[in-house]
Amino acid sequence: MTPETRAAEFDAADPLSSFRECFTLPEGVIYLDGNSLGALPRATPGVMARVVEQEWGEGLIRSWNSAHWFEAAGRIGSKIAPLIGAAAGEVVACDSTSVNLFKLIAAALAMRPGRKVILSEPGNFPTDLYMIAGLEAQGLAERRLAPREALAEALDDEVALLMLTHVHYKTGAMHDMAALTRAAHEAGALVLWDLSHSTGALPVDLNGAGADFAVGCGYKYLCGGPGAPAFAYVAARHHAHLAQPLTGWFGHAAPFAFSDDYAPAPGIEQLLCGTSPVLGLAALEVGVELIAEIGVARLYAKSQALSEFLLACLADLGVNLELASPATSDARGSQLSFRAPHAYAICQALIARGVIGDFRDPDVLRLGFAPAYLRFADMAAAARHIAEVLGSGEWQRAEFNQRAAVT
Amino acid sequence: MTPETRAAEFDAADPLSSFRECFTLPEGVIYLDGNSLGALPRATPGVMARVVEQEWGEGLIRSWNSAHWFEAAGRIGSKIAPLIGAAAGEVVACDSTSVNLFKLIAAALAMRPGRKVILSEPGNFPTDLYMIAGLEAQGLAERRLAPREALAEALDDEVALLMLTHVHYKTGAMHDMAALTRAAHEAGALVLWDLSHSTGALPVDLNGAGADFAVGCGYKYLCGGPGAPAFAYVAARHHAHLAQPLTGWFGHAAPFAFSDDYAPAPGIEQLLCGTSPVLGLAALEVGVELIAEIGVARLYAKSQALSEFLLACLADLGVNLELASPATSDARGSQLSFRAPHAYAICQALIARGVIGDFRDPDVLRLGFAPAYLRFADMAAAARHIAEVLGSGEWQRAEFNQRAAVT
Repeated sequence: MTPETRAAEFDAADPLSSFRECFTLPEGVIYLDGNSLGALPRATPGVMARVVEQEWGEGLIRSWNSAHWFEAAGRIGSKIAPLIGAAAGEVVACDSTSVNLFKLIAAALAMRPGRKVILSEPGNFPTDLYMIAGLEAQGLAERRLAPREALAEALDDEVALLMLTHVHYKTGAMHDMAALTRAAHEAGALVLWDLSHSTGALPVDLNGAGADFAVGCGYKYLCGGPGAPAFAYVAARHHAHLAQPLTGWFGHAAPFAFSDDYAPAPGIEQLLCGTSPVLGLAALEVGVELIAEIGVARLYAKSQALSEFLLACLADLGVNLELASPATSDARGSQLSFRAPHAYAICQALIARGVIGDFRDPDVLRLGFAPAYLRFADMAAAARHIAEVLGSGEWQRAEFNQRAAVT
Repeated sequence: MTPETRAAEFDAADPLSSFRECFTLPEGVIYLDGNSLGALPRATPGVMARVVEQEWGEGLIRSWNSAHWFEAAGRIGSKIAPLIGAAAGEVVACDSTSVNLFKLIAAALAMRPGRKVILSEPGNFPTDLYMIAGLEAQGLAERRLAPREALAEALDDEVALLMLTHVHYKTGAMHDMAALTRAAHEAGALVLWDLSHSTGALPVDLNGAGADFAVGCGYKYLCGGPGAPAFAYVAARHHAHLAQPLTGWFGHAAPFAFSDDYAPAPGIEQLLCGTSPVLGLAALEVGVELIAEIGVARLYAKSQALSEFLLACLADLGVNLELASPATSDARGSQLSFRAPHAYAICQALIARGVIGDFRDPDVLRLGFAPAYLRFADMAAAARHIAEVLGSGEWQRAEFNQRAAVT
């Protein structure tokens, strides 16, 4: 049986196949980069037109009340909550992942006086590590990095916060959230999980793991649009004694009392800072609702099947690429990464054929499997393109063109 | 001559009258709240549809390069720059006003070691004052408030930063930017101007005044949409030795090198933190381009004429309201505020008639004159509505309804 024949059987049996119609995808493209920017939900343009033309254009300032703009940050947060094992009222949609990291790193430092160390791993997503730098320069934090196999022993009584990305952006390797959270708590530290590469692709159970804080991205698997607002989670048990430093008016207990003195809102809204980005939130809400409707358990099952099928197709076609991701789908997120000396050129040659993955410095070809809109047929076709690119020397031409352009 | 007749003459002679057609305004509404949320430019829905459907939907991840999303923050900043007396490369569009305040307050503290005081005035816009609170709780800052007439003497060698809003949100009173900047510098302090109620309504000359930092709002006179990205300005002379604490990957010198260590971008882009909010920036750019095309000098001249005409109409109609704004238009921004014990009820009664101003606690009725789309006829009509509301007792019914709803 050819890969294409098997793919057709899988697609016919796929309970999620009809959801592809809920997205707009360009002709001739196999989109394996939904882990970087999710595809456009078909409902989004209509919602955006309504928000812009009616809510803003006609409603003007009145829409903060009549179109419920004030509630959007908390309302969308509560729709994200069940995707990540949180309760309504523990999640809010706001700012960027980076800004939310800053709030929660600083909040953790305030909750662990006498401890200054933020523990993470080398090679974590850059902005996670960078957001420690500003607090380090202010004398408030001290960064410590330990490889994932040495994290447990690096947890000592100087550590205020263990901060990790649940699914690694480059390899897709998944941390054991429950075990690491337990280890951190045993050392007296708090835990912050970056769910950017998890949310909407696989089930997460923050409250089951006893996590303290989390952040995540709105523009990847949640399909909220380029640069969509991010989200932040704080376990309800911490709400009453949280102190995050971005104390803006939207996080105030009574913003329209216009008092000179800051008093935090009692719930998760204390994480808000400036005025909510209404247009970005409107697009995010469409994506969140759609992903919630499909359901993360079904999405993860399909994502695992997709990546396993792609590997099988590559094997069938005799492709020999070094896998940089965990070999079993239970141990990884919704992506496969391959290590190859000419990864950049291979990625460019694939893009020229309409197979859009991405390259991550220095030698990683990264393919993401957003299960809401990909078909098994896409896997078979992608595998054949990869085989042809590697077999034909196309990647060498792509590399030559790149070097010619640079020099 | 009736107010209406005079208004018709003014409108006929108004060189900006044709620009009203560049905005969408609802039927039956006199919109005097453009200082809170600017009206919708007529071009915005089409631009948003293109960005959502083509750039995101068709271009997907490729649009970061092909649609120039990466450059949007700096490009829009450089379009804002001439509106505020800054050079291209000194302004960037990003985050919220509140978040940008935090970056620049913290940057000022880092540039003035040994000084911890942030000096502002009581009654400044709340988020400006609130953004000091987080840094105070971290032990990094100390807030000092002095009434505007006592600011000069409050500037001592403990002050790291003088932080003021150029045009007061409640009264419209305008600070003397050049004189206060000079006074702060003589005391060894830096200066941060919040231009939220200035930008796009009147000329500002940051570089002429020798200012150090500024922030401003995208959703008021710039017509960037609800919760639009804000902007931040840093004088070029400070770029090489700036240290702001929100050290995210979009502010990195080489974000896609994915290094573990933070190194700031050399120019104004070092103020970026997370991934740029593409949808919000797209709407903001439309508004900025339109306001820049009209020109702030012409806008301010018309704004002054509008507010003076409204005051004249009210006088003609025998309306007696206490002015909370400076009496001469040179001393105020693009708004008039009136103090009245029943301001809330009066505001509600006016809104019921389609005259949308706003109420600011405890007793201020605030009317804003966004000069890009208001007519002198709107002033005459607004004055007549105000006279009728005050004369008829309508505001008493509005107050009764409000109390009935609350109790």
